[in-house]
Amino acid sequence: MSIQKKLKFGAIIHGVGGNIAGWRHPDIQADASVSLEFYTNQAQKAEEGKFDLVFIADGLHINEKSIPHFLNRFEPLTILSALAAVTSNIGLVGTLSTSYSEPFNVARQFASLDHISNGRAGWNVVTSPLEKTALNFSKTIEEHPDHAKRYRIAAEYLQVAKGLWDSWEDDAFVRNKETGVFFDSDKLHQLNHRGEFFSVQGPLNIGRSKQGRPLIFQAGSSEAGKDLAAREADAIFTGHPTLSAAREFYQDVKNRAKVLGRNPDELAILPGIAPIIGATEEEAERKYQEIANLVSIDKALDYLGRYFEHHDFSQYPLDAPFPELGDLGKNSFQSHTDRIKQQAKAHNLTLRQVALQETTPKPTFIGTPEKVADLIQEWFEGNGADGFIIGSAVPNGLNDFVDFVVPILQKRGLFRTEYEAETLRGNLGIPYPENRYAKKVTTH
Amino acid sequence: MSIQKKLKFGAIIHGVGGNIAGWRHPDIQADASVSLEFYTNQAQKAEEGKFDLVFIADGLHINEKSIPHFLNRFEPLTILSALAAVTSNIGLVGTLSTSYSEPFNVARQFASLDHISNGRAGWNVVTSPLEKTALNFSKTIEEHPDHAKRYRIAAEYLQVAKGLWDSWEDDAFVRNKETGVFFDSDKLHQLNHRGEFFSVQGPLNIGRSKQGRPLIFQAGSSEAGKDLAAREADAIFTGHPTLSAAREFYQDVKNRAKVLGRNPDELAILPGIAPIIGATEEEAERKYQEIANLVSIDKALDYLGRYFEHHDFSQYPLDAPFPELGDLGKNSFQSHTDRIKQQAKAHNLTLRQVALQETTPKPTFIGTPEKVADLIQEWFEGNGADGFIIGSAVPNGLNDFVDFVVPILQKRGLFRTEYEAETLRGNLGIPYPENRYAKKVTTH
Repeated sequence: MSIQKKLKFGAIIHGVGGNIAGWRHPDIQADASVSLEFYTNQAQKAEEGKFDLVFIADGLHINEKSIPHFLNRFEPLTILSALAAVTSNIGLVGTLSTSYSEPFNVARQFASLDHISNGRAGWNVVTSPLEKTALNFSKTIEEHPDHAKRYRIAAEYLQVAKGLWDSWEDDAFVRNKETGVFFDSDKLHQLNHRGEFFSVQGPLNIGRSKQGRPLIFQAGSSEAGKDLAAREADAIFTGHPTLSAAREFYQDVKNRAKVLGRNPDELAILPGIAPIIGATEEEAERKYQEIANLVSIDKALDYLGRYFEHHDFSQYPLDAPFPELGDLGKNSFQSHTDRIKQQAKAHNLTLRQVALQETTPKPTFIGTPEKVADLIQEWFEGNGADGFIIGSAVPNGLNDFVDFVVPILQKRGLFRTEYEAETLRGNLGIPYPENRYAKKVTTH
Repeated sequence: MSIQKKLKFGAIIHGVGGNIAGWRHPDIQADASVSLEFYTNQAQKAEEGKFDLVFIADGLHINEKSIPHFLNRFEPLTILSALAAVTSNIGLVGTLSTSYSEPFNVARQFASLDHISNGRAGWNVVTSPLEKTALNFSKTIEEHPDHAKRYRIAAEYLQVAKGLWDSWEDDAFVRNKETGVFFDSDKLHQLNHRGEFFSVQGPLNIGRSKQGRPLIFQAGSSEAGKDLAAREADAIFTGHPTLSAAREFYQDVKNRAKVLGRNPDELAILPGIAPIIGATEEEAERKYQEIANLVSIDKALDYLGRYFEHHDFSQYPLDAPFPELGDLGKNSFQSHTDRIKQQAKAHNLTLRQVALQETTPKPTFIGTPEKVADLIQEWFEGNGADGFIIGSAVPNGLNDFVDFVVPILQKRGLFRTEYEAETLRGNLGIPYPENRYAKKVTTH
């Protein structure tokens, strides 16, 4: 690891607390998931903390058993565009599925966000894990594609998007008022993509941005997900219960990138964590218990079911061993459901234990600011992470992190005290991508 | 007309001047179509003028002959979301095509904008007039649907969107921290739409907004367009060369609404105009000539061709009568191309005359502030318009209108001096739409 390497931080904003009942906490704004004021305050707090980015997650299907902050929330591109207008340096990353949209529209909206924010946009590419998502979309795509096919679609979709983002070379827009030349027609390119799933001519009706094009994030941890990330992503949003699991994932993905001829330093691996910080260990533990105790067992079973294709867990005895589920969950949140099954078996857990642990997992990163900073340093220097996406498990979770943990990491020289750049790409340290057509010209 | 009735105003923001060469004017910001600062300034100026709304037009296909501000511009939903964060009362209306998108995604993005702006969103529903648009979208929708089919799709699409916007009743989100009830499940509704073109289950993952749901604008002037507007729209963005043409359209559409059982006052008809204002008639005329003289005849022919399915007009003699084109243009900008053909015949115009007139039509609304205010009053009181969408034909066009014409109309009692409401719906005077399911309950 080079001596200058610094931590990267993102803040995931999702509105209503760290578990499915977090909104019930007296210090939580219960309508935060549709409050522009809340999102603005969180984004500005993260910017005050010199974070690299804010992150908005997403989903395209709900039912009445969905968790509260999924039921009624902002759509990522719209809320990120609003946040662009009230922030100046922080990156703006949002989830959008490649399974139920058109690459021309999506490439264009992210490019537009990238211009609005002057080079701060990022797209977290997902493939929609929920089978029932297909029911919200038109007949032509009625069947939810299986896991492997979703990733084939995503890979081609990304090729199209990156191609459209190169429609105009960097200096295509001449805008010479004297001669009347608005653009150099040699620097405008049709994509003419014809693939297995998409047929897109181009060009895109928006040019390159200050960071060239939006950054690509990837969040799947399955084999197909890691492979797509190693090929196409600039950063990965992942999650691991232990440093050894994180390190294994980190080495795996960095190696995949290396094998593909990429510089592994140009693919940032950012596990999501939701630290609970207290002035003392006891205060942190008390904060955790406060949130955990808000969840009822019925709600916990519903929540668990969501990962297993909305399976009804209320049919099983609560205090018997976790039931045998066969392949259930394989076609939705594959890596997560595999882990639940393995851990239940390994530790001989009951259904009740699994359900409550799933709704309010005790965070690894809990304790005093010094302890949380130590853990972050350990993961970072131990090649478990290039940085972290910080979630709020308890009221004021992000604020506590910015106010108490960030200064320690800055003092240790592990985190920036000022932004290095005005773009997300520049702050993450990922090189500017040459326009594919500009390259060709220079090699002739 | 009731005595309290007031004018309504919108501002169309599109970046680079009133004709295809407007960007060459020394006082025009040539990169305005991708300048957040420009859009912010224009939106705030319109809000200072107590305008009802800003309007962002759109298109999904360009080629190298497209007009400059179409080549490189913001996408409407993203730029409107950014403007939501820096304005407080003005409505935010954007164009989006029903031919190349999914109703679940689009209903959701407009609902999200409606929440971000606290009840100020509007959607201008179009069907994409350009044949070649299909080339930018995937194989499943490779053929551009014909005019009639596009409007059948649009009508069903709007039914789906309005249905999704009723997924949650107004008071569905209880958020009772004591009992743990986040929402009242009796007030959550699946749409279960299955129609000719779309199959959408719902519910939408965002609730109703302060104005109930986004407003619907419509901009087509064909028979199918007027019919859709009369059935489904809250407002129409139209355009007419004379008061008599405007009055005919106005009566036609209001009658259609009445026949369908609607109150015609609840459908606002807003012609687009681009006034040129001078301290004297001569100054206004000089501003017009300055802009008109920036256009070359080659560029003017290209521009004309765009309305006729990218027809190449350079093959005809410039000073001979406008060529006979048969049905060309019928399947794209139908009403506009019909009018061009009729006027060329009626006035015996040459190709050169038609092309130059098309690129820089001399506005009806040109002259001193008093004269422009008189014309506006004449159209308004003469039942040609409920208000206007103001474009900028010349540098500072919107600013001149706000600074010099608006105060005259306010003094005459024709236009508001303060916003009546915080929502777009409230300012336009369009009643709050009951949730369809709430209605059912009260009639039982």
